[in-house]
Amino acid sequence: MSKNLVIQSDFGTSDGAVSAMYGVAISVDPTLRIFDLTHDIPQYNIWEGSYRLYQTITYWPEETVFVSVVDPGVGSDRLSVVVKTADHHYIVTPNNGTLTHIKNDIGILEARVIDETVNRLPKSGESYTFHGRDVYAYTGARLATGVISFEEVGPKLDVSEIIELPNSGPTVNQGVITGTIDILDVRFGNLWTNISRELFINTGISYGDSVEVTIANDTHQVYKNIMTFGRCFADTRLGEPLLFVNSLDKLGVAINQGSFAKAYHIATGANWKIIIRKIPKIIYN
Amino acid sequence: MSKNLVIQSDFGTSDGAVSAMYGVAISVDPTLRIFDLTHDIPQYNIWEGSYRLYQTITYWPEETVFVSVVDPGVGSDRLSVVVKTADHHYIVTPNNGTLTHIKNDIGILEARVIDETVNRLPKSGESYTFHGRDVYAYTGARLATGVISFEEVGPKLDVSEIIELPNSGPTVNQGVITGTIDILDVRFGNLWTNISRELFINTGISYGDSVEVTIANDTHQVYKNIMTFGRCFADTRLGEPLLFVNSLDKLGVAINQGSFAKAYHIATGANWKIIIRKIPKIIYN
Amino acid sequence: MSKNLVIQSDFGTSDGAVSAMYGVAISVDPTLRIFDLTHDIPQYNIWEGSYRLYQTITYWPEETVFVSVVDPGVGSDRLSVVVKTADHHYIVTPNNGTLTHIKNDIGILEARVIDETVNRLPKSGESYTFHGRDVYAYTGARLATGVISFEEVGPKLDVSEIIELPNSGPTVNQGVITGTIDILDVRFGNLWTNISRELFINTGISYGDSVEVTIANDTHQVYKNIMTFGRCFADTRLGEPLLFVNSLDKLGVAINQGSFAKAYHIATGANWKIIIRKIPKIIYN
Repeated sequence: MSKNLVIQSDFGTSDGAVSAMYGVAISVDPTLRIFDLTHDIPQYNIWEGSYRLYQTITYWPEETVFVSVVDPGVGSDRLSVVVKTADHHYIVTPNNGTLTHIKNDIGILEARVIDETVNRLPKSGESYTFHGRDVYAYTGARLATGVISFEEVGPKLDVSEIIELPNSGPTVNQGVITGTIDILDVRFGNLWTNISRELFINTGISYGDSVEVTIANDTHQVYKNIMTFGRCFADTRLGEPLLFVNSLDKLGVAINQGSFAKAYHIATGANWKIIIRKIPKIIYN
Repeated sequence: MSKNLVIQSDFGTSDGAVSAMYGVAISVDPTLRIFDLTHDIPQYNIWEGSYRLYQTITYWPEETVFVSVVDPGVGSDRLSVVVKTADHHYIVTPNNGTLTHIKNDIGILEARVIDETVNRLPKSGESYTFHGRDVYAYTGARLATGVISFEEVGPKLDVSEIIELPNSGPTVNQGVITGTIDILDVRFGNLWTNISRELFINTGISYGDSVEVTIANDTHQVYKNIMTFGRCFADTRLGEPLLFVNSLDKLGVAINQGSFAKAYHIATGANWKIIIRKIPKIIYN
Repeated sequence: MSKNLVIQSDFGTSDGAVSAMYGVAISVDPTLRIFDLTHDIPQYNIWEGSYRLYQTITYWPEETVFVSVVDPGVGSDRLSVVVKTADHHYIVTPNNGTLTHIKNDIGILEARVIDETVNRLPKSGESYTFHGRDVYAYTGARLATGVISFEEVGPKLDVSEIIELPNSGPTVNQGVITGTIDILDVRFGNLWTNISRELFINTGISYGDSVEVTIANDTHQVYKNIMTFGRCFADTRLGEPLLFVNSLDKLGVAINQGSFAKAYHIATGANWKIIIRKIPKIIYN
């Protein structure tokens, strides 16, 4: 195995929770290399946990083991699983939807249920509230360092049993593309959509074209205006909005050096729609 | 030694302070493994620093060296010490109360005062404001990598000289348990008390029982209501309060997927009391 | 090379951006050691990025490679460079002013422009918005692990071409010292000036002396009062202001256990002036 362990959670880093997970993992094998994905997933936000896995996993070496703990059902009968992805990474996580994007966009080769009779930190006591430390970090570290094989995680689970959150793809109708605002580029307030560059380009839009962008949620339109499809932020003036291709090769919406999300109070999820259509270029004589 | 160094501070990670400490440590020996406990201890909050050490230290391998810097008295005549715990970890820290929980709950085998004539970063200049970098990270790294032995830290200090903050245990009186709110599970707003599961169970309360929980500070009661003693959050409905056993085997108070601390404006410390008593189960016919 | 890579950015750690950079770097060579400087540089704040490099770099071993990405012009024609400092560190960064303090205070021996035809993550796609991952982390990791030499980064750039932000030094006039508030000690709200201890002492001021400190911006004075020049915070009473020597051997202004910056709404930059003069000691009979 890779001896790389990458941890994600909604625990924050202000208390000792993440450090306890690190300690458990390094106790398994001091040569393990441990990294963070992020610990700032909003509490209980399984969708965002799923997205962050998808966003980063392909940049890590094969056989890297990921531990992802966004687990509102800790202690309930939700299963704990390890999956092997089509790109040969492993993910240790509760089976609660956190694998939605991995399953849809990358693929899962095989899934196993963690057998907690063997894969649980010895002497971890009577607590039923911190499986991140007692089960996930411990199992992830043992898998990453080869103490256990993937088979020794526990019994097979049919991949169809891996829970997916509702997640519909974008549609194109007479040159009008409709997608969803999947997530934000948090620090900068850019919107990241589920519309791929390929789909977009196939509708006949090129860099420099003007497009009309409409953003709406269940109850009302929140934005409708014209912007340019640019290669990069520097193609626009300061404070100007633009449509761009983000670092995952999907369409994003930004204000150059501003926050689009804050400016228009835009949130994310299946009910946040974005509709894009090309408009005739306006030439001023 | 373990070659593991774990650093805690109240410095935050927004400026270069923690990175300078890392640089000093890795300069001692590039094979040193450096980890964070947290750097978000509230400024000058020695109690919370003490608690976070206690919360995490047992999950780390023996001989791991901890550096803990919450140091409002930097530059004064407060001593800088290294202690060896009963569980064979080392802690490098100012002697200002930051070892309170370690001394009470784990035990200190031996203490030494840092001799700054030898254990101070060469050429660290005229600054008296950053011992975290110039003394603690440097000494911690040298101890963790075996450049110096524990004895070479400096002269022995009697363990009775290690300063403790006021810290009284819980009491039981006619089935009524009184304890304190020691700390929060920061991200989730759960209250962590100083009442152990063992003490609690010995009063005859079992999972599923209803209990009356009163929370009060010096001036008034802030909460008095009935909740269930549950094994995990999933035992209750969304938004319902519960009493549970936390990941340190002590009693906690939570709102399932809400923040108990925010809901009732609850803070922590010796003046925040929690009183728990069993009540008759109410059966509705 | 050192096999140490230290990363700084304005990306925050709440999404997957930094983790993707780590993944790219560790994919170059699993034995690379990766550390953070900070990822909380305020968005687009090149000055602060420059300062944090200067603040920390000397504490890291020679040949450590730094990656610094505060890059409002990503995708524009701003150059991407690697410089070798006079202290034998390397910095991979856009040429946008982020090397201001390094160039002025430490010195740059040689600069090279990154040749992106070879030094860009293979298959990094059509995105022009994440050079931090696709160019800087990748090039930094390859340089730190010896996959490429400094010469293989790309063609030489004259050091005079390295962009500097406006950055004037302090002045002394008849015992009155005028400098600027360069930056804050973020968590504690202390002001860090550009006045060195040496310059200050040379005006005849000693520890314990009283000084008059005036702080003004372009439009008005925001503070004018008398404080003590102390060796450390503990030399003053709680809540008292003091002038002190900070951990970079420059003058700082603090309130003992308070935030000077918040108390007086003080920001940083070239237009925030500080004027200090010695006053007669007041003796109360």
